Amino acid sequence: MLNPIPSLEDLQIETLGPCTVPSPLCPNTTSFVNENSRVSLLTDSLAIEEYLAQGKPLPTFEQAGPRQNIFFDPKSLVCGIVTCGGICPGLNNVIRTITLTLYENYRVRQVLGFRYGYAGLAPDSPFPPLFLSNTDVDNIQEAPGTILGSSRGPQQLEAMVATLQKHNVSILFVIGGDGTLTGAAHLAAEIKRHNLPISIIGVPKTIDNDISWISRSFGFTTAVEAATNAIGAAHCEAKSAWNGVGLVKLMGRHSGFIAAHASVATGVVNFCLIPEVPFMLEGEQGFLKALEARLARKRHAVVVVAEGAGQYLFETSSNGERDASGNIKLLDIGPYLKDAITKHLSSLNIDFTVKYIDPSYLIRSLPAGAVDAEFCMELGLSAVHAGMAGKTNMAVGLWNQNFTHVPISVVTGVRKQVNPRDMLWQTVMNTTRQPYAMI
Amino acid sequence: MLNPIPSLEDLQIETLGPCTVPSPLCPNTTSFVNENSRVSLLTDSLAIEEYLAQGKPLPTFEQAGPRQNIFFDPKSLVCGIVTCGGICPGLNNVIRTITLTLYENYRVRQVLGFRYGYAGLAPDSPFPPLFLSNTDVDNIQEAPGTILGSSRGPQQLEAMVATLQKHNVSILFVIGGDGTLTGAAHLAAEIKRHNLPISIIGVPKTIDNDISWISRSFGFTTAVEAATNAIGAAHCEAKSAWNGVGLVKLMGRHSGFIAAHASVATGVVNFCLIPEVPFMLEGEQGFLKALEARLARKRHAVVVVAEGAGQYLFETSSNGERDASGNIKLLDIGPYLKDAITKHLSSLNIDFTVKYIDPSYLIRSLPAGAVDAEFCMELGLSAVHAGMAGKTNMAVGLWNQNFTHVPISVVTGVRKQVNPRDMLWQTVMNTTRQPYAMI
Amino acid sequence: MLNPIPSLEDLQIETLGPCTVPSPLCPNTTSFVNENSRVSLLTDSLAIEEYLAQGKPLPTFEQAGPRQNIFFDPKSLVCGIVTCGGICPGLNNVIRTITLTLYENYRVRQVLGFRYGYAGLAPDSPFPPLFLSNTDVDNIQEAPGTILGSSRGPQQLEAMVATLQKHNVSILFVIGGDGTLTGAAHLAAEIKRHNLPISIIGVPKTIDNDISWISRSFGFTTAVEAATNAIGAAHCEAKSAWNGVGLVKLMGRHSGFIAAHASVATGVVNFCLIPEVPFMLEGEQGFLKALEARLARKRHAVVVVAEGAGQYLFETSSNGERDASGNIKLLDIGPYLKDAITKHLSSLNIDFTVKYIDPSYLIRSLPAGAVDAEFCMELGLSAVHAGMAGKTNMAVGLWNQNFTHVPISVVTGVRKQVNPRDMLWQTVMNTTRQPYAMI
Amino acid sequence: MLNPIPSLEDLQIETLGPCTVPSPLCPNTTSFVNENSRVSLLTDSLAIEEYLAQGKPLPTFEQAGPRQNIFFDPKSLVCGIVTCGGICPGLNNVIRTITLTLYENYRVRQVLGFRYGYAGLAPDSPFPPLFLSNTDVDNIQEAPGTILGSSRGPQQLEAMVATLQKHNVSILFVIGGDGTLTGAAHLAAEIKRHNLPISIIGVPKTIDNDISWISRSFGFTTAVEAATNAIGAAHCEAKSAWNGVGLVKLMGRHSGFIAAHASVATGVVNFCLIPEVPFMLEGEQGFLKALEARLARKRHAVVVVAEGAGQYLFETSSNGERDASGNIKLLDIGPYLKDAITKHLSSLNIDFTVKYIDPSYLIRSLPAGAVDAEFCMELGLSAVHAGMAGKTNMAVGLWNQNFTHVPISVVTGVRKQVNPRDMLWQTVMNTTRQPYAMI
Repeated sequence: MLNPIPSLEDLQIETLGPCTVPSPLCPNTTSFVNENSRVSLLTDSLAIEEYLAQGKPLPTFEQAGPRQNIFFDPKSLVCGIVTCGGICPGLNNVIRTITLTLYENYRVRQVLGFRYGYAGLAPDSPFPPLFLSNTDVDNIQEAPGTILGSSRGPQQLEAMVATLQKHNVSILFVIGGDGTLTGAAHLAAEIKRHNLPISIIGVPKTIDNDISWISRSFGFTTAVEAATNAIGAAHCEAKSAWNGVGLVKLMGRHSGFIAAHASVATGVVNFCLIPEVPFMLEGEQGFLKALEARLARKRHAVVVVAEGAGQYLFETSSNGERDASGNIKLLDIGPYLKDAITKHLSSLNIDFTVKYIDPSYLIRSLPAGAVDAEFCMELGLSAVHAGMAGKTNMAVGLWNQNFTHVPISVVTGVRKQVNPRDMLWQTVMNTTRQPYAMI
Repeated sequence: MLNPIPSLEDLQIETLGPCTVPSPLCPNTTSFVNENSRVSLLTDSLAIEEYLAQGKPLPTFEQAGPRQNIFFDPKSLVCGIVTCGGICPGLNNVIRTITLTLYENYRVRQVLGFRYGYAGLAPDSPFPPLFLSNTDVDNIQEAPGTILGSSRGPQQLEAMVATLQKHNVSILFVIGGDGTLTGAAHLAAEIKRHNLPISIIGVPKTIDNDISWISRSFGFTTAVEAATNAIGAAHCEAKSAWNGVGLVKLMGRHSGFIAAHASVATGVVNFCLIPEVPFMLEGEQGFLKALEARLARKRHAVVVVAEGAGQYLFETSSNGERDASGNIKLLDIGPYLKDAITKHLSSLNIDFTVKYIDPSYLIRSLPAGAVDAEFCMELGLSAVHAGMAGKTNMAVGLWNQNFTHVPISVVTGVRKQVNPRDMLWQTVMNTTRQPYAMI
Repeated sequence: MLNPIPSLEDLQIETLGPCTVPSPLCPNTTSFVNENSRVSLLTDSLAIEEYLAQGKPLPTFEQAGPRQNIFFDPKSLVCGIVTCGGICPGLNNVIRTITLTLYENYRVRQVLGFRYGYAGLAPDSPFPPLFLSNTDVDNIQEAPGTILGSSRGPQQLEAMVATLQKHNVSILFVIGGDGTLTGAAHLAAEIKRHNLPISIIGVPKTIDNDISWISRSFGFTTAVEAATNAIGAAHCEAKSAWNGVGLVKLMGRHSGFIAAHASVATGVVNFCLIPEVPFMLEGEQGFLKALEARLARKRHAVVVVAEGAGQYLFETSSNGERDASGNIKLLDIGPYLKDAITKHLSSLNIDFTVKYIDPSYLIRSLPAGAVDAEFCMELGLSAVHAGMAGKTNMAVGLWNQNFTHVPISVVTGVRKQVNPRDMLWQTVMNTTRQPYAMI
Repeated sequence: MLNPIPSLEDLQIETLGPCTVPSPLCPNTTSFVNENSRVSLLTDSLAIEEYLAQGKPLPTFEQAGPRQNIFFDPKSLVCGIVTCGGICPGLNNVIRTITLTLYENYRVRQVLGFRYGYAGLAPDSPFPPLFLSNTDVDNIQEAPGTILGSSRGPQQLEAMVATLQKHNVSILFVIGGDGTLTGAAHLAAEIKRHNLPISIIGVPKTIDNDISWISRSFGFTTAVEAATNAIGAAHCEAKSAWNGVGLVKLMGRHSGFIAAHASVATGVVNFCLIPEVPFMLEGEQGFLKALEARLARKRHAVVVVAEGAGQYLFETSSNGERDASGNIKLLDIGPYLKDAITKHLSSLNIDFTVKYIDPSYLIRSLPAGAVDAEFCMELGLSAVHAGMAGKTNMAVGLWNQNFTHVPISVVTGVRKQVNPRDMLWQTVMNTTRQPYAMI
């Protein structure tokens, strides 16, 4: 983790006010979490000792979980849920858990599902919010995608606040990625400016697992599992041909976690290219020569490339163009690499085949596997507990197997990336046995 | 079926000579098939009556199955297997069944696996044939692809005959599609010209299910099953977005069977476009307007297109370019349609999303599902029985739930296609409810 | 097929009256079926010739499909659906297709789903029928089981007729097995006795595929696919142990189709025991000795047994006890065989392991695979077309790839079974290589 | 975690001698681990402070990973691998990684696979060890089970040492559970007594995830994923019937981790019964009454029970009988509970159905999912690095996302169990909403 370490002060969570309402949760079945329970951000004992030696307070996260006293009175509460950005395994699990926990554990009476992302919070939205009942969400975890619909891009802050007020919403659960959460922080600031008792709770969503200070994001594990199937297909195509090359592009705009984990999990990948580790394409030490050598040795090769890898290879850059969510538009490394491989192997006058697979939409649209389903359950529970306690401008997270509250400002802005010196990349190098000189 | 009906004479199977060797198969466990058992090609009773009224002999296929007396003496027999063309679920099942049946049922002593298609039969091939033992093939049915490797394109006939003679091969099992089988027929003719006692037995392979006079080809059912998953992903992406369009390109160069069956199986497809049924893209009655209307009504749409559909839409044609197997190169309808949809919807000034999925290589590289696994078992058994009985220049097939022997000349040349008047297409129209005027 | 062949007269379909209402189906997109289109029951040309020679009319089924004129006026029609007996993959697909076809193709205005089998037709039923709308059934095909609930056993005929009248139901679609269809025939007779214009249309449901004169029943293909996974697990357990025996009990009360097809599909089964082929347990030629020999040779073995196999082995019989649906209660061959194997191998003083797997409930509760999903679509369409045309006391079926109308009396009573002389069992013998003497 | 915390002294790893051979691993691609890198056992900051306040040295694990200098000279090294106990997803992944890492990273020349557990180390074993080459293990990770075979129970120590000496084995990798590892410790002690330079490295295997001081064991995540499918089947059966009860028995002899995680992941479980939390069966507050109340409310219920739950319910105890691996024989809670439920509901005179599912052998025999596949890769790498460095009498483990070396004595003896006060059980209670009074 190379990101600058936030200070203890940076990690304080904003609240709407004191918690004076006794929690309706059954104290028999629930261990309430103390407001001062905190989770150490540092895990390396040397780093901890250094901090302590310098007399600096250790940076810690507020621990998630149910509070004995809460801020909102559930009896009259209206809550809202909105999902933004691209789809991801687990969205419906989060929607379901938030809804069922509000109704069945806190006895909240009304949950609204805003439609199609922030667009559903615009006053002129053609699609009114759904009233979500217990039974409406009963089986939605079995369906992929989001029952609420999603979209990219922000809306006017004033207008969104007005919509929340119009529907009397006291807690808004925002499920989305970096851009969405930045928007949520702006919304929380606008609400604060108006001094309104409305809580904004984020549930970070990134299939790439690239959100800082959060160990793992939901959907990621399901994506790695599915990515291994695509790699298996590429391996099969490659082995069934003479000088067969199977090329798989996996998700990962800025961080190669899916590519790296899936490569290790399969154990059949020969080249794994990620945004964090630049590689040479041409030249004696470059990727194309290394691929040629691999083919000469084994007659087939499997190449995995994360979508954000090798952007510097493009002569014409994207000039910083951005999509509706504010993400920089990437040029497409998959076809680029396929063409480069084809051109190089053609020049050798050998028989060869390149099969290119882009499974992204097939992966995003899967239902959550068991690991993610359980994770979404915990995130949803944590989000509801946080919202009921009047926390705001925060996201729920996971750190060292503890669920945490993290200020939105801390999770946005700087991305989590694969550290080439960490064990993950070491294992990629040790199992792909790709030449070090290439990268 | 619009193809011209072959005559009874056309359907006669070539043989190498009289069967004088008693079959080593256990008569207790095996019902031997009579040499004159035949399977009616016609099933429509009106057509049968018409034939009989005209005094024409009914066209019938020779029935596959074990013969009480066989042509080759298993004790000294060497057999060969070769797989050609693109991979397809079930290839290893066929290789396994042929090998195990030769060894364990007929007590043949040697089976050779030629590598990488017909290229492995070239005298200068850098890859010698594999000696396949019982245990070598024991679990290969669990692996997708082909353990032998495959390639496209023919080899010189004289050279291939020489290779067979060099290895003392008496039966060559050729697993491949239209081009491959045509090559097998030429090989059989060359062998006949030399008056050699070598049998050439084809096992038709086409994931598109487009081989004439064969009810179903192996791998097809697995492909339809997998195609429904891709359609499900497109449906999920479409429903999760405002004016979301999910577009799936499925295999089907000349015949839309995969697209049609998968569309019916899912029940969520709104437009199914296949090569056999031309459609208009532009105009008031065209596809784009119909899609626009569907979006206005339901806010999402799923479109399935077979790869060979709408080739007439391309201004610049492929000029009849062909790939190494002799297949005409098609222009890529998937991206073409994606661009056309994007352009049309952009002109309407509405928010929309188009997600394009091309799952072909993920489908081809699957292991065979149960239906295909059983089918490959029957095809492999039939192929071995036919070869041992000295049949040649034929393929094994399925017709009305009977396994058959079909001359290669009959199965090649004319493709099987979806008949727009048959029940399959009727059901596509009734369940997609796509406008008739569009097509 | 050893069952007595029904005469042409037996195969006539009962109707409620003449069809005078023009079909609302679009003639552009629909090929209407002629009332006198029929499908030959016989496929063997020798049998056909024999019939013709004797001057007997050929037995033929009425062909399913949309009629140009129909009996019921869709505008005011109320239809009902009921599912009975054990669950089976595809139930929701059939419910969905019937509902959508009634609403969207025929413009029917009301569809009722009776709850929990025939119990939902009892006047004192605590659960009123569901009103099924288009959107209610939109995604139910993705869910296994039945959204209507099911139960076993009949209800009083008078009372069921009264319920249908009370709800103004004109067509009742009954999805169920042998006992359920027999009940449906009684219900149709009772309705006829009262001279009421109510149609009873059966959709045969049997995961065992044991209904006579119907080529294949829905759910069966999905069950075979899933059964191969259980066999694979048994194979893995067996191979991983010294003298490991994997024993799988599969569904098949009277017919071993699932066991036979799944055994062939996997290619790893050494013994396949089905109700149609009695086997000896003890003795020099018996199963236990054959298993012992297999273990001595290969050190592992896979045994598949259909639940109805070997009932004669039990000393104490079930005395013809029956369950609520009227099925004879079987004694449990799975644990019986496990104990017998354990006892026999223990007596040999060898190390061994027996792993017993009973996957039945895991199989029944799967969603339909693509083959069954498509099949359910066709069955549902056929059922609706038949009902709208005023047919009654009939079931929809499949024969030689044509959808058919079959009188309920023809499909009930006599079961379809594996014929030991047919290709299926031949292939089982040829691939398991189980000793003939044992059976 | 309630187990007594081992002292720093207890956690020291035994070694065969000083490391004087330079590692053949490429220093460019490998970050070597310092011999004094250690991983804190404690993660709770309060506990850490308490330790420090008491002046006690913090308990830490030796960190796994490649060492710059190693003990054994790879050039002449022979290594052995043995798998013991029940099968578990990932066994072949571990075998493959150990073998490939030895050959391709360390350039070891010979790897032996002992057959069928410790029985393969007996001098009179009828099955000689397999010589495992690179290509032998190339694709074995796709196959479930163990290619080496497995068995339960120990062998004579002297005899096993003799076998290792006879084959010149310097490192033995032992993959197995609690009993197997205890045996490995005895073997290491015997080797030490003889002063032999043979390393014994354990890879802990327990599908139940019940090994102390190891965060997660391989196969467990795959098992939870598969268990959710069985629960889904039970849910489907339950919902499709009137008063339907779906009962699933899951693995977990002493620890309910699979049951608890799978229950949370599905979100459809109403009762989750595990060994760690005793429950009442009878009485007003008991499980049967609670089940009755659930059925009255919702008409269906899903019950999950771990195999070790409720052993105190049996009148006749097992008298401490043990199986060949030394595990106490449990009485079968699944059928016991099924009978108790059936008896109770029968007494109420209501219609009901109980479907009992035991998926254990179907789960054990799965190939590893991606999470476990990656985990096995890391475990295998860590085991090889440890062995090459001359460590012995230790197991590789995972603690707080670091791979560790743990003395076998620390991981055996005391089991890891679900702590009813921890978040996992809290979430089970909050999502099943099972009555607290029952337990």
